[in-house]
Amino acid sequence: MTTQPLKIGFIGLGIMGGPMAGHLIRAGHQLFVYTRGKLPEDIANSSATQCLNARGVAERADIVITMVPDTPDVADALFGDNGVASGLTPGKVVVDMSSISPVETKQFAQRIEALGCDYLDAPVSGGDVGARNATLSIMVGGKPEVFERVKPAFEAMGKNITLVGGTGDGQTCKVANQIVVALTIQAASEGLLFAARAGADAAKVREALLGGLATSRILDVLGDRMIRRTVEPGFRIALHQKDLNLALGAAKSLNLALPGTAQAQQLFSACVAQGGAAWDHSGMVRALERLSSFEIGEP
Amino acid sequence: MTTQPLKIGFIGLGIMGGPMAGHLIRAGHQLFVYTRGKLPEDIANSSATQCLNARGVAERADIVITMVPDTPDVADALFGDNGVASGLTPGKVVVDMSSISPVETKQFAQRIEALGCDYLDAPVSGGDVGARNATLSIMVGGKPEVFERVKPAFEAMGKNITLVGGTGDGQTCKVANQIVVALTIQAASEGLLFAARAGADAAKVREALLGGLATSRILDVLGDRMIRRTVEPGFRIALHQKDLNLALGAAKSLNLALPGTAQAQQLFSACVAQGGAAWDHSGMVRALERLSSFEIGEP
Repeated sequence: MTTQPLKIGFIGLGIMGGPMAGHLIRAGHQLFVYTRGKLPEDIANSSATQCLNARGVAERADIVITMVPDTPDVADALFGDNGVASGLTPGKVVVDMSSISPVETKQFAQRIEALGCDYLDAPVSGGDVGARNATLSIMVGGKPEVFERVKPAFEAMGKNITLVGGTGDGQTCKVANQIVVALTIQAASEGLLFAARAGADAAKVREALLGGLATSRILDVLGDRMIRRTVEPGFRIALHQKDLNLALGAAKSLNLALPGTAQAQQLFSACVAQGGAAWDHSGMVRALERLSSFEIGEP
Repeated sequence: MTTQPLKIGFIGLGIMGGPMAGHLIRAGHQLFVYTRGKLPEDIANSSATQCLNARGVAERADIVITMVPDTPDVADALFGDNGVASGLTPGKVVVDMSSISPVETKQFAQRIEALGCDYLDAPVSGGDVGARNATLSIMVGGKPEVFERVKPAFEAMGKNITLVGGTGDGQTCKVANQIVVALTIQAASEGLLFAARAGADAAKVREALLGGLATSRILDVLGDRMIRRTVEPGFRIALHQKDLNLALGAAKSLNLALPGTAQAQQLFSACVAQGGAAWDHSGMVRALERLSSFEIGEP
């Protein structure tokens, strides 16, 4: 490695956190870990120090990363009994890489800063494949100097690392991304479904549209999946539902109406009702197909 | 010109048809024209023959192009008193370049084919700018050999000329395009509006999103317009409303539910209610802003 080894705490070693922590260890950093579940075997067999709780991690590390499922899990890891906050001393940095509420993130950051520490929100996109391959996109909110301090750790885990703005803006960017993706999936779905229902070749229409204003990576990549009718594996609808819950929850607290996002979430719910919680999110088209008892590909 | 001059009829010389006919004349084709409105000066001063009605055009030309506002106008031009149908003789081709219903297009084609003639639907995108610059995208439905026969005329008027499929598929493709564009505009609108409302810099979020799955030409080009708050000039909302009317009307007759398209149409209606009929369609974001009394750009 080209940088000084860092003393990094890692809380949450699940399907995302496990491989991410593994990359940090292989990059030469000194790790202190805690997870509620089972410790992954490669971490157990590594140089990482297993701690009794999140407090123990915060007492030993200079940079404490959390990678847990949802907003309440972050609240618990940071501020619960024997949480990170109880072990911090001034000058340390808390980096939440979970995808959680941007609104509550700002409150978490204030409480951490009140302890004389710094806070970055740094959610990722790219899923478990990106975590394993160290190709995650990382969207960061916080102070530039704190971002620079943590950057070597980010670089061990991801590829596109962007400081979007101040505290909370990383989470906001991630939520905005998931809103745009969900609604663009609906755009491609309704366009291709219309084309097929009207008797055209959806694949040819998709190709014709890719040259013009309608073009998007989703029409290209996920539109192709819709036509080929492949929904597994992929980015699971259940995960996108969680992200849109964040979007709609945050929007409510911000007094913002997002009618398209709400509708997209309902279509994902319809997919789940059809047994599609594990489908790729392009499977949203199947909820629209079911509405009209018609599938793309039928003549 | 590299091809034989064609005897082309042109019916409808408005903001689109006028410049399109002008390109055909300059390409060396022999034109027979009829329009309900005033004959454009450059056409009047050209080699084109002005006919008394659509019948006169069809009697003289081998290829008869219609470029009129809406489905009833095409019906009238083709099958009304002294319409195209009354002047056709076997072997001629009718090419409807208007943007109209794909469902009724198939009926029009059947009636024309019953007269021993051929029919192409060939709607365009690119607007009046594309018409003036001969850079229209042309989406064609019909038989391949008929497409080849008319191709030299298309090439005088446009750049991206695609035979999408059989009769009606050109109109279907155009409608699908407008569905995808409208819903992708809503996708960019809701994502950027969320980002701004949550306190992030919408421009930075847009940039961060352009690298990933959320990327689209609309997020790029129209997202920029949303942030800069420029809604004129552009593709007028009133025209996109007409296209979504076609989409929803055709969808109804096809027993297809398009909930996102319906919602997008309502947002365009809200823009019109705000005086935005002539706004660029990226102005849809303003209907969403009005819903929540918040504008992108406010801190």
